[in-house]
Amino acid sequence: MATDAQQACFEAGIKFGSLYHQFAGTPVSPSSIRSLETAMAEAIEKQPFCESVTVEIHGDRVADAIDHENDYTELTGSLMDVEMRIDYEGVRVRTRMTMTDGYPLMELVGVDEP
Amino acid sequence: MATDAQQACFEAGIKFGSLYHQFAGTPVSPSSIRSLETAMAEAIEKQPFCESVTVEIHGDRVADAIDHENDYTELTGSLMDVEMRIDYEGVRVRTRMTMTDGYPLMELVGVDEP
Amino acid sequence: MATDAQQACFEAGIKFGSLYHQFAGTPVSPSSIRSLETAMAEAIEKQPFCESVTVEIHGDRVADAIDHENDYTELTGSLMDVEMRIDYEGVRVRTRMTMTDGYPLMELVGVDEP
Amino acid sequence: MATDAQQACFEAGIKFGSLYHQFAGTPVSPSSIRSLETAMAEAIEKQPFCESVTVEIHGDRVADAIDHENDYTELTGSLMDVEMRIDYEGVRVRTRMTMTDGYPLMELVGVDEP
Repeated sequence: MATDAQQACFEAGIKFGSLYHQFAGTPVSPSSIRSLETAMAEAIEKQPFCESVTVEIHGDRVADAIDHENDYTELTGSLMDVEMRIDYEGVRVRTRMTMTDGYPLMELVGVDEP
Repeated sequence: MATDAQQACFEAGIKFGSLYHQFAGTPVSPSSIRSLETAMAEAIEKQPFCESVTVEIHGDRVADAIDHENDYTELTGSLMDVEMRIDYEGVRVRTRMTMTDGYPLMELVGVDEP
Repeated sequence: MATDAQQACFEAGIKFGSLYHQFAGTPVSPSSIRSLETAMAEAIEKQPFCESVTVEIHGDRVADAIDHENDYTELTGSLMDVEMRIDYEGVRVRTRMTMTDGYPLMELVGVDEP
Repeated sequence: MATDAQQACFEAGIKFGSLYHQFAGTPVSPSSIRSLETAMAEAIEKQPFCESVTVEIHGDRVADAIDHENDYTELTGSLMDVEMRIDYEGVRVRTRMTMTDGYPLMELVGVDEP
């Protein structure tokens, strides 16, 4: 019914939606960026068909987002770049989330069939 | 690069991951099932390319999951069925989440190209 | 050890943290405000010692927050006011979250001992 | 109006509700326990008046919760113990979440006024 490539893209989307809505809103400051990046990547890599996840939370953007009286902000898509690779039955899908025109955009970068 | 059908499946996956990880853990009891189903469906339907979302939280499963001293439980995938339709550039994707062998399974039901 | 009034305030805080971190990030547009307000209030009211929850998501703020190409935004503390009443062993606690100096502030409004 | 001790207990509750509803549902396996514990503690420690947070996710409980075909489970309160210390205007509050009668219970352990 669905092709392996379509299934692979579906799985890639699940991981992106999961990562975003599980972790958006988490308190973050420059000193906690590393632990949050690691935990996000390791959590989503557990999900089926997920080969690798790289999360980069930008320290300068976090610093800019921190308000006047607290020393933290909340994680949003605009503070990070994410790259992910999915392998479903040999189809490899590469995806990323980056800032595009001021908004975080989730996109398919490549779909490589065997 | 990616086909419209693959993009459509990617978008479908994003919605499923979003719905699950946004709302899993929400306190729910038999009397709040309707409002939670409605809010979940209306929230995810806002996302791009999402045509319709149907959420059915099963009252009997919620009642069974409620513990001895509280009168609520937390929403998990095993308490609900979800159906979703995506339309991306004319490609229509149908997806669902149902209990299969005791676990909630997200799956592509159909990919209809124009 | 802890007084009933202190316990009541602890319970009030739990509900506020729960409400915020469960629902922040939910997609919302002017047309889905009502269902989200209702689901949030009914979900948190299920928690122990919670008498009532009122959530008001401001349509004008949601409209202002919506970006140029999508028709929704993500729920944040700055879009809503929340009021909550807790009753723990006869101690009634009133709490609210409102915008103060540009930031959402959770605060105790009153602690009434029997 | 509210005493410093009551405010301190309110703040303690906010942190507990935040921790629980931000991170419940996160995919976790024995190999990702450490990174998740660290990220949870560091995130919540950023919040106002929070002195320290210790999160212990039990590897044996995670292993028992993992299902037959995946190699991960979702974080729930029953898999972890949490201890937290709050300091509000000199009032120190100690709190913990532990399994009690089969359910995770959040509780005040001590309220020490200066």
